[in-house]
Amino acid sequence: VIRHTVSFSLVHPEGSTAEADFLTTGARTLAAVPGVVDFVVSRQVSAKSDHAFQFAMSFADQGAYDAYDAHSDHRDFVAARWSEEVSSFRELDLIPYDVS
Amino acid sequence: VIRHTVSFSLVHPEGSTAEADFLTTGARTLAAVPGVVDFVVSRQVSAKSDHAFQFAMSFADQGAYDAYDAHSDHRDFVAARWSEEVSSFRELDLIPYDVS
Repeated sequence: VIRHTVSFSLVHPEGSTAEADFLTTGARTLAAVPGVVDFVVSRQVSAKSDHAFQFAMSFADQGAYDAYDAHSDHRDFVAARWSEEVSSFRELDLIPYDVS
Repeated sequence: VIRHTVSFSLVHPEGSTAEADFLTTGARTLAAVPGVVDFVVSRQVSAKSDHAFQFAMSFADQGAYDAYDAHSDHRDFVAARWSEEVSSFRELDLIPYDVS
C-alpha cells in the first residue's frame, strides 16, 4: 500500500465559500478516481507549517497510483482548479517501514 | 483526534545500522510515551520530497499531545538522538475536516 499525501494552502480567504468549494469538489472528484481508497481531508493546524489543509489517499500498488495520476478526472482537476487555487503544496508518498 | 506527523532525513547512510537503530529506537521510545496511539514508521519514497522517513502518531486531544511534548522520554530522545541525527524535518498536525 502507498499512502499519498499532499499538504497545501489555498489562495482563498479562510472560511470562505470558495475554500469550502475547493475542498468539497476536490474530495468528491479525486476520491472517485478508480484505485483511490481511504481518501481523507484534514485541516493542518501546526504553526510550524504554513499549509492549511491536507488530502491523503491510498493505492494498493504503484500501478494503481500511476493510473490515478494519468486519469483525466485527476488531470482535469489539477488543470482547472489546483493550478489556479493552490498557493503552495508539498507531497509525500509513504510505504510501511518495519521496525521490528 | 490529532494526527501528528514528522517527515525527516537522517545524517546516516541509507541502509546503515545507524539508520535502522535510530528508527527502531525512535519508534520504541516515542510509541511508549503515554497518550501516543497508532504510531507508524514509514519510508518516504516520492522524489518530490528530500525526506526519507516519517513518524506518525495520534493523540486523543490537545492535552494528550501537550503531555507527550513535555514528557521526559520525548524530550530526552530529541536532545540525545533527534538533534544529532536528523538533518532536516517538517511537522504537520492534522485534524478531521468534514467535507459533507
